[in-house]
Amino acid sequence: MKGVTRSIGITLGDPAGIGPEIVVATLAAAPPARLARCTVYGDRVPLEAAAHRLGLALPDVPILGSGEGDRAVPGKPDEGCGVAQVGYLRAAVEAAKRGEHAALVTAPISKTWARRGGFQYLGHTEMLADRLGASDVAMFFVGPKLKIALATVHRPLVEVVLELTTDRVRRVIELVAESLIGDFRLSAPRIGVVGLNPHAGEDGLLGDEDADIIAPALEERCGSAVLSGPLVPDAAFRDLLHGRYDALVAMYHDQGLIPVKLIDFDESVNVTLGLPIIRTSPDHGTAYDIAGKGIARPISMQRALALAFDMLDAR
Amino acid sequence: MKGVTRSIGITLGDPAGIGPEIVVATLAAAPPARLARCTVYGDRVPLEAAAHRLGLALPDVPILGSGEGDRAVPGKPDEGCGVAQVGYLRAAVEAAKRGEHAALVTAPISKTWARRGGFQYLGHTEMLADRLGASDVAMFFVGPKLKIALATVHRPLVEVVLELTTDRVRRVIELVAESLIGDFRLSAPRIGVVGLNPHAGEDGLLGDEDADIIAPALEERCGSAVLSGPLVPDAAFRDLLHGRYDALVAMYHDQGLIPVKLIDFDESVNVTLGLPIIRTSPDHGTAYDIAGKGIARPISMQRALALAFDMLDAR
Repeated sequence: MKGVTRSIGITLGDPAGIGPEIVVATLAAAPPARLARCTVYGDRVPLEAAAHRLGLALPDVPILGSGEGDRAVPGKPDEGCGVAQVGYLRAAVEAAKRGEHAALVTAPISKTWARRGGFQYLGHTEMLADRLGASDVAMFFVGPKLKIALATVHRPLVEVVLELTTDRVRRVIELVAESLIGDFRLSAPRIGVVGLNPHAGEDGLLGDEDADIIAPALEERCGSAVLSGPLVPDAAFRDLLHGRYDALVAMYHDQGLIPVKLIDFDESVNVTLGLPIIRTSPDHGTAYDIAGKGIARPISMQRALALAFDMLDAR
Repeated sequence: MKGVTRSIGITLGDPAGIGPEIVVATLAAAPPARLARCTVYGDRVPLEAAAHRLGLALPDVPILGSGEGDRAVPGKPDEGCGVAQVGYLRAAVEAAKRGEHAALVTAPISKTWARRGGFQYLGHTEMLADRLGASDVAMFFVGPKLKIALATVHRPLVEVVLELTTDRVRRVIELVAESLIGDFRLSAPRIGVVGLNPHAGEDGLLGDEDADIIAPALEERCGSAVLSGPLVPDAAFRDLLHGRYDALVAMYHDQGLIPVKLIDFDESVNVTLGLPIIRTSPDHGTAYDIAGKGIARPISMQRALALAFDMLDAR
């Protein structure tokens, strides 16, 4: 990405969640050369309160807020927090559209409170795709041990099949292949595609989607990537852990996220593939139950920022 | 279980799979006092071939077969193997019904070949429930680190909700509580009940079944058990691993089995709850790809037999 900005925008998320704490701890741990490339979208009062609680100085970076989040009480989200968290995100995305940032790193929002604050999307990913004009995006979890992308995301389980098409599975395979090659420098990435049904359908006894929807997505070659599947779900993740694949494409939210949280716990980073910019975020939520206590682990946010910088440097 | 038989029936499963190897290795490793209580339902030729391959003597236990499996070629199942594996199982179940065995330990069958051999069930569990007159049974995976029961089992993913009722979830909770108290000697077992949808439905944004079907199953007390749920699926299994619960009730096959295989790998045992007898089995399949090579790990079968004896002694 030569000739473009190398600046990263960081959004605070819900100011009543753990966002302020993990953002402060992440900035405090960033190398100075990287810190100089960061802009925070959030309000100063919750950031200063978090810094005080953690015994840290608030680093000297641009902090762009609206004041809406200044009255946020940790663990007690309200309408103002909803408006604030939506505002931070909108401002950061507009700046990225103007070319001011090549990457965004986003702290957690509350889907419930963001909605009350005027947010019309299920999550960050859907909003970024819409605002940045990306037709196909995918969530890709990158942890120390597992890399897992999702073919469908925020859907009730019964609705997964409504969204699962051969084109969609194929597109996610392509996005993962591009990222493994471009961002992670793998020349011939091994990508496993997980089945939808128990035992990947067991020859049709346990469902047809594995053969009818998923298998056709694997028929054509995908550049230098080596594709396998549809894989038996309960074996695929174990095989990923043991190094048989570089990444898996999972068919639905919990199929991918249960392994991510079991194995990589809070060290996994959520990467949005398919956007015109880089976007990473921690893989946890607002964690109201521990917000303001100074005990939230910032490791996933720290890894999200580090990975965004690494991807910027690799591209 | 005083006054009843303390004998265990072991079925060979598909004679073309790894059944003969893992049964021989399990018998060879059993303490003499326990070996004396074992009867094998299977054919002698594949057992002797497996013993020869493994460099073991075939232990002196009753071996009840039909001869149908004597021509089985490892890794090459055929109609004869289908008929044979169904026959072993039927003979063992009939013996259990006559009171000759208080427990059955079953090596893997092939659903495909068993069907061709006249088997009309999706798996062992359904057959045992039907033949032994049990109206409510549940699969319960017991491993060194995780204990996970399934509310629904062999269903295409889209059909899970058709089978998931409050009564069913409640019944599985009760079966797990009974087993943890009676078989595992926990006085106040902590049982977590996993949600169906991502984020357990997130207040209805991502599905209604968590609130409408699962939550009501937790309303009434269940003896001395401590119930929690509906739990967010991607957090629940991590919390189980970290000791927050003694067992979880998962809502569908892969929700439970992906964690089992990731964490307990091939050391987990499948226990059928709700039968009038004890029944355990290894948690893997026929593994035709390695059958006859002498490399199949017998650990899950060995644990299945040991757990069956332990449960017999605890009751």
